[in-house]
Amino acid sequence: MMMYKPLSLFMAIAFSTAACFAQSDNFKPAVTNFPGKQYPQVNAEGRVRASIAAPEANKVQLDIGGKKYDMVKDEKGVWTGESLPQDEGFHYYQLNIDGVPVPDPGSLYFYGAGRWGSGIEIPAADQGFFALKDVPHGLVSENIYFSKLTGLWRRCFVYTPPGYEKDTKTRYPVLYLQHGSFEDETGWSRQGHANLILDNLIAAGKAVPMIIVMDNGYALKPNAEVTDSKASPESIFEQVMINEIIPMIDGKFRTVADRAHRAIAGLSMGANQTMRIIMNNLDKFSALGAFSGTSNYPSTDVIDPARFLDGKFNDAAAINKQLRVLFLGLGTKEPNPFPGSVGAFRNMLDKQGIKHVFYESPGTAHEWLTWRRDLEQFAQLLFKK
Amino acid sequence: MMMYKPLSLFMAIAFSTAACFAQSDNFKPAVTNFPGKQYPQVNAEGRVRASIAAPEANKVQLDIGGKKYDMVKDEKGVWTGESLPQDEGFHYYQLNIDGVPVPDPGSLYFYGAGRWGSGIEIPAADQGFFALKDVPHGLVSENIYFSKLTGLWRRCFVYTPPGYEKDTKTRYPVLYLQHGSFEDETGWSRQGHANLILDNLIAAGKAVPMIIVMDNGYALKPNAEVTDSKASPESIFEQVMINEIIPMIDGKFRTVADRAHRAIAGLSMGANQTMRIIMNNLDKFSALGAFSGTSNYPSTDVIDPARFLDGKFNDAAAINKQLRVLFLGLGTKEPNPFPGSVGAFRNMLDKQGIKHVFYESPGTAHEWLTWRRDLEQFAQLLFKK
Repeated sequence: MMMYKPLSLFMAIAFSTAACFAQSDNFKPAVTNFPGKQYPQVNAEGRVRASIAAPEANKVQLDIGGKKYDMVKDEKGVWTGESLPQDEGFHYYQLNIDGVPVPDPGSLYFYGAGRWGSGIEIPAADQGFFALKDVPHGLVSENIYFSKLTGLWRRCFVYTPPGYEKDTKTRYPVLYLQHGSFEDETGWSRQGHANLILDNLIAAGKAVPMIIVMDNGYALKPNAEVTDSKASPESIFEQVMINEIIPMIDGKFRTVADRAHRAIAGLSMGANQTMRIIMNNLDKFSALGAFSGTSNYPSTDVIDPARFLDGKFNDAAAINKQLRVLFLGLGTKEPNPFPGSVGAFRNMLDKQGIKHVFYESPGTAHEWLTWRRDLEQFAQLLFKK
Repeated sequence: MMMYKPLSLFMAIAFSTAACFAQSDNFKPAVTNFPGKQYPQVNAEGRVRASIAAPEANKVQLDIGGKKYDMVKDEKGVWTGESLPQDEGFHYYQLNIDGVPVPDPGSLYFYGAGRWGSGIEIPAADQGFFALKDVPHGLVSENIYFSKLTGLWRRCFVYTPPGYEKDTKTRYPVLYLQHGSFEDETGWSRQGHANLILDNLIAAGKAVPMIIVMDNGYALKPNAEVTDSKASPESIFEQVMINEIIPMIDGKFRTVADRAHRAIAGLSMGANQTMRIIMNNLDKFSALGAFSGTSNYPSTDVIDPARFLDGKFNDAAAINKQLRVLFLGLGTKEPNPFPGSVGAFRNMLDKQGIKHVFYESPGTAHEWLTWRRDLEQFAQLLFKK
């Protein structure tokens, strides 16, 4: 913060960006910073200001929201620059030092966009629902297992609710919760704060205590070419979920191992995957949450229920009986094709008379604040008598 | 690997480093790489080769083992360079791009040296003892708690052994295991593989199933100046351990809550801390592991037991009765003052006739391979009838 005044003065004079800086007061270190680091910072408008010492560099940029912002070097060799206002929520970003994209040493690192790198939280008015509060906290456990189907060791994170360790008699329902494209099993607890969202809901009596299993949606046959597409013919995630993950979880944790007490949800790619998985396995699950995605993605065409997913949505009466919860979520600022694609799916449901809940996250895009809000809404609907 | 031949040829011609490259065959991607990344690589000599595309950069260096190695740019703008042979074990490193130290995008990130950054494993002949094997695996749980003494939320990772979840009757002994200076509660599971070491020992019947608690050794009074020194008068880690961490763990997990079933160990700064903690609280613990550190650090002077730690080691008979295990570990390649400091402590123990076990890790320095081996040795001595 000490650097702000002289620097802004210097830049205002040197580059007549006074207007920009006039409205850029109240920059504060981001909550996603490495503890004690002053940069990056965020202001009330959601502008992101980055700063890094690079006396020998020729060009340093802040790369956020699909845009590169040139940073400016001061007399001490410290480069500083800021972005246009960003939507509230969580954004991956990086710095470019003489053209090389690198993580910002000031930020904590998150796995997304296919790499471990920087992320920044633009504060939202409703951030309390995923905040660390003085309520009982569950545990998030790293669970390693060997997958015969993929020939690899895999990992999932398992949330067990407050009281799970002490009350060894109780058995719990399970939500299987999937990440999106170019993300992994760390996303829902690190970026998503799924554990804190449930801790807060359970403390408020708004959600049933449940186990949440967060696994990795990428699963390929041994020696298959690596691909990021869940649509790949090589993908065997559904088989891994049904034949390996669920039996392992039911064997290791105190679950209620029936369809009535098993839900599945995912975001984006994970929504597409989980919708296919549940419709192929309605004997295993009774609730679906599709956050910012549906299995007709990326198409926005009218859906013919007789043919979509081999007619899995054709018998509305049967689906209304089997699916206790069919939840769809979408941010109001999501880019194409998400609104059109999810919209086409909703139109099909309405035409068919298939009951569902649609939640719109106000002012958020295709990012984690949308998905945290989806989870908070969805979790309250699950496993109710 | 495809890049290797033309690059070495180019460099050999341009810089007559042929000799260096002649002995640099068989480079393989490091096990600590981000999955799928080809660089950094390690060869049989322990040389580290880094590579990064930086067409616009003027100078790129590999910074490892306290030495910066200039990397060389090829016609495609890819910089590559290699280090002198490194000791086997785990080493933090970074790249310098036009003078800016940044993590290597090819490596996974670890918390050490006060930052999240790159680390690389130089393979050791005995690496099997901390390898991921087809044996039953315990869980590593992230446990969040509020500390009234520090006024902050804190976190520890808790290893529960295989079977803990299923067999809800059994209670387990507990090892409190501390990291070193500029490291944190993530170190023992990420760099140290404490969970895998115990999984392997327990599967082989060499160690008693136990809970391991890995907390953060930095604990200050509210509003105290941040410091890295455990010797700081502000440090209240001992009070946090005794009054907050132990009661929380005994309340939340199925422990045997008595001194006979409670051990404490740490590395470097953590060894210094845990030795002070156990000698001030012999009613709470019955075993100590001091890995690459003792409480006389950094002094190498002869220790007067009547005055050292207020005479805590003065009554040899009482200590031999109370300490079921007093374990000291040191790598044969550790720098000063560790050999002299630990040596002075051992001399005091011998003069006093205080029973102890001293383990020397062959060929390793002040790093994680030494400490993994210490843990493997130490864990086998704990909680035996």
